[in-house]
Amino acid sequence: MAKNYFNKRNVDFLLYEVHEAETLTQHARYADHNKETFDMTIDAATQIADNLMFPFVKDVDKNQPELKDGKVTVHPAIKDYLKALGESGLIGADFDYENGGAQMPVTVTSILGYILMSANNGMMFTGLTAGAARLIASFGSQELKDTYIPNMISGKWQGTMCLTEPQAGSSLSDITSTAEPLEDGTYKIRGQKVFISAGDHDATDNVIHLFIGRIKGAPLGTKGISLFVIPKYRIDGTDNDVTSMGIYHKLGQKGVPAMHLGFGDKNDDCIGYLVGEPNKGLNYMFQMMNEARIGVGITGASIASAAYYAALEYAKERPQSRRLNQKHALDAPQIQIIQHPDVKRMLLFQKAVVEGSLSLLLETSKYFDLSEASDDPEEKEKAHLMLELLTPIAKTFPCEYGMKAISDAVQCFGGYGFTEDFPVEQYYRDIRITPIYEGTTGIQSQDLLGRKVPMAGGKATMLLAQEVGKTVMAALQYDELKRYALSLKEEGERLQKVTMHLLGIAGTGDVERFLSDATLYMEMFSLNVVAWQWLKQAVVAKQKLIVSSDNADDVEFYESKIHTMKYFFHYEIPKTQGLATRLMDEEVLTIMTEKEVVM
Amino acid sequence: MAKNYFNKRNVDFLLYEVHEAETLTQHARYADHNKETFDMTIDAATQIADNLMFPFVKDVDKNQPELKDGKVTVHPAIKDYLKALGESGLIGADFDYENGGAQMPVTVTSILGYILMSANNGMMFTGLTAGAARLIASFGSQELKDTYIPNMISGKWQGTMCLTEPQAGSSLSDITSTAEPLEDGTYKIRGQKVFISAGDHDATDNVIHLFIGRIKGAPLGTKGISLFVIPKYRIDGTDNDVTSMGIYHKLGQKGVPAMHLGFGDKNDDCIGYLVGEPNKGLNYMFQMMNEARIGVGITGASIASAAYYAALEYAKERPQSRRLNQKHALDAPQIQIIQHPDVKRMLLFQKAVVEGSLSLLLETSKYFDLSEASDDPEEKEKAHLMLELLTPIAKTFPCEYGMKAISDAVQCFGGYGFTEDFPVEQYYRDIRITPIYEGTTGIQSQDLLGRKVPMAGGKATMLLAQEVGKTVMAALQYDELKRYALSLKEEGERLQKVTMHLLGIAGTGDVERFLSDATLYMEMFSLNVVAWQWLKQAVVAKQKLIVSSDNADDVEFYESKIHTMKYFFHYEIPKTQGLATRLMDEEVLTIMTEKEVVM
Repeated sequence: MAKNYFNKRNVDFLLYEVHEAETLTQHARYADHNKETFDMTIDAATQIADNLMFPFVKDVDKNQPELKDGKVTVHPAIKDYLKALGESGLIGADFDYENGGAQMPVTVTSILGYILMSANNGMMFTGLTAGAARLIASFGSQELKDTYIPNMISGKWQGTMCLTEPQAGSSLSDITSTAEPLEDGTYKIRGQKVFISAGDHDATDNVIHLFIGRIKGAPLGTKGISLFVIPKYRIDGTDNDVTSMGIYHKLGQKGVPAMHLGFGDKNDDCIGYLVGEPNKGLNYMFQMMNEARIGVGITGASIASAAYYAALEYAKERPQSRRLNQKHALDAPQIQIIQHPDVKRMLLFQKAVVEGSLSLLLETSKYFDLSEASDDPEEKEKAHLMLELLTPIAKTFPCEYGMKAISDAVQCFGGYGFTEDFPVEQYYRDIRITPIYEGTTGIQSQDLLGRKVPMAGGKATMLLAQEVGKTVMAALQYDELKRYALSLKEEGERLQKVTMHLLGIAGTGDVERFLSDATLYMEMFSLNVVAWQWLKQAVVAKQKLIVSSDNADDVEFYESKIHTMKYFFHYEIPKTQGLATRLMDEEVLTIMTEKEVVM
Repeated sequence: MAKNYFNKRNVDFLLYEVHEAETLTQHARYADHNKETFDMTIDAATQIADNLMFPFVKDVDKNQPELKDGKVTVHPAIKDYLKALGESGLIGADFDYENGGAQMPVTVTSILGYILMSANNGMMFTGLTAGAARLIASFGSQELKDTYIPNMISGKWQGTMCLTEPQAGSSLSDITSTAEPLEDGTYKIRGQKVFISAGDHDATDNVIHLFIGRIKGAPLGTKGISLFVIPKYRIDGTDNDVTSMGIYHKLGQKGVPAMHLGFGDKNDDCIGYLVGEPNKGLNYMFQMMNEARIGVGITGASIASAAYYAALEYAKERPQSRRLNQKHALDAPQIQIIQHPDVKRMLLFQKAVVEGSLSLLLETSKYFDLSEASDDPEEKEKAHLMLELLTPIAKTFPCEYGMKAISDAVQCFGGYGFTEDFPVEQYYRDIRITPIYEGTTGIQSQDLLGRKVPMAGGKATMLLAQEVGKTVMAALQYDELKRYALSLKEEGERLQKVTMHLLGIAGTGDVERFLSDATLYMEMFSLNVVAWQWLKQAVVAKQKLIVSSDNADDVEFYESKIHTMKYFFHYEIPKTQGLATRLMDEEVLTIMTEKEVVM
């Protein structure tokens, strides 16, 4: 079993040295906080992760929840960790004081999520609860808040998000669940939802569903969707007619039950409580989507992190063969496989993906915090635009590249990686859902190119270019970084050219063609943004090396950061060439024509 | 459950129209064969695949073999299919008549393997048996042949390859199993082997291990390795002291038991029979390696094939959302997801990988046949060089790109792809071992760049360039193909430039640096070779369209071939740009230096 799943030194570097989380405490919302409160919270999460989560990685995977006689039983360890997280105030740490939170910046709670999820992503119950409670906190009546939030963020009640329906999938405009107004202001709910994570289980006393449906007579499409709170048990303890109709057996993340739920299916007696105004449900959902998507990005980065540290540990210990220049020295001892260039390359890739993703997630989280907490309207607007632009990337890159990174982790283990004797085969399975749920990569990519890039007249991309420009300027100060600064600048120009080309197509009104290769555009854009994060890290490492050159551990740490930045520019960035070629290419091959190509 | 796992029309196209398998029957070895005997054999395999294999895909995965009281029990369906394949003469169909085979060309038996493996890759027992029996047929004494081959190719006895040891992994020079000569000419064997596929089970009466070890006093390294036959039960029925010490629980291919075996572990009474001469064992193995590696390539292509047809079927049936240009037509019916460009792109990728891989595998198999059967020494030498050059690619591309293709198949299914309700999650697991066993991708890549490209003064690459040139010339005849012909020519030049650059490094004697990015070189080389295979298919499709323009099914089929060729050139080939950039790049980042970068 691997011993590590994250690196505390790296967390400190990213949180404090690169993204300067302490500066957030200048804002009134976070004024009670300082590095000590952040560290205490991180330590509390680490304790729980080390003691109550990481030891159960395999066990939770092996004993997946089952549905029997209408009841879902999950691994008993889940109850313990929910209790511990709730008691430590970690589930709603970033909630407002008035809702029982600690007003912790999301920049810090993203790190909590990273630590917990890399310890055991099969125990991802609390993120779901927090997301659901946050919807109530943001848009619910005081009564709904008082009734539900305290029991949710204390870990006593589970929260869920009930969006997907069997016939609609990602197409939320096609959902058909109905809500019929009752005289007392509540609604009678009928419908079915699928893939509801943590949709039912026995580790909490109640399950609170945040549910979208149509009030009878509502307009077609997304403008007729309303949001409801639907508890499994009503407050008086009576059953609210939410039925567990099925449980999915899945490739990974087996600890978390994914449910097929029926509402009003048994006795036509399922009551829902409207959140906010009618027909605004999807609007509310969208306002919560950035956090949910950042959360999935963190999941991807976390699973890849656990796999990377397992592979790194193995590669440092496992002897095999000799250096390629010394193949024939048969009596020489075998070397550790990390010394083989091909293995080293795969480890550098994993490190580049994990640490680059985490840096991007913190960058995005910090814009989230500033968009919430800044008093300066200009800074607030900028933060909001950057958050909107970066969110689909922060959701997608850690998951898509995380999958590749974990595949390389498996490869580092050779045949052993394919066996259950080592943990990576599980991580390989677990991460596969992340580019699907909370908006597939295809949907994130359409969001990036179709909405985020053009929004506000392209202002967000301009702001991003300015930020990248600052990092380029800083990097140009150091001889060793100069070529990478220039490379990043050049990559920005290449991306700009592709963007202009695509917006030209959008200008013709052919949306389908404009967006047809959005997924490739996403990859190109992501590589740019992550290269920026790596150069940013390298600049800080350079600065620190000047002052910390007497601490051998620090020197090693910072030099490794610069080395990994170089890896990213020399091995990953060249991929943008081919992507740009395709994206500028006029040949249309994937759009349905009158004369359809049969496959 | 999916209904299809391969496409017969495509098999006919590749086998007869593109690779002209019938021309092989001009050679004496295959003189008894013709299209009818090929078709009959393919039909026989299809019957078995349809009736005895495909129906058990999930069941074999769910009921993986267990080791209890020293015995391994496999799924009962395995015994039935072994019997059926053995009785139909399909296990050793390509063996010489004198060894009980039908002297079927490997070009045809590769198709048999493809059909069987895409039906159910968890039943891959016979390929292992054939490989082991082939070693005996090629290098064993008449007595060994008579004793073992008939029972093996009739499916009564299982064959295995026992190479890997726990302390050595891929480094065969470090194996330590020993063989002590006994007075009767046999050897007393001691040692342990790991990851032995089909290493023990109850679906056959005996298990025949082809085993490498060192005769006492043999030289160090690979030059001291000898090959032995070690039966589980001796011919007189007594136990030969081969112990099942452990069974691996694996990510995929769960139907096939992977064993940890002890030889002479119980009573120091394990007898081995030397194959051929002492110390030539690895040599013998190497001479069989091309077939084994082609076999793994077929496995990769087969699993990807099964996943592709499942995804294609789903994408044609599943309605979701509307066309991007008609997003707001809310009362319009939903469209089938194959009509979404992003889904179509993923399906084209899968098709391009599956059919491109299969074409490459047939090309390689045909060179195998010609290297065996040609009477013309020049043709024979050419075939041998082409076989040597293409084999590492034919092993690697179908597995590496097959993994990506299956990941896209999962994505086409959305959330359902992650569940056990559909077959793709299993294929996603099953294929993950293929870039590891029978020589990892790293090792194949070093073989390609380090041995195959420079061999015979670069003659093989020259021959390949000639063959590609022929396809380019043929394609230039058609207006629609012209730009792709020119593109392939240009890609060949790009590859040539990179190769020269790398050989320049080899010339300095720095082998480690020469080979440090061999895996990237493999990807670039593979993309070239598969683009060639696609252009070759497109040329044939063009030719056929001229004569078959009145058959609507044929027209659709051939046009889809040309369309997929275009996909490959427009979406996959641009990747070579970034690969070339990296491969020409002087910056060394993965080679151990005195001042090691700590990770």
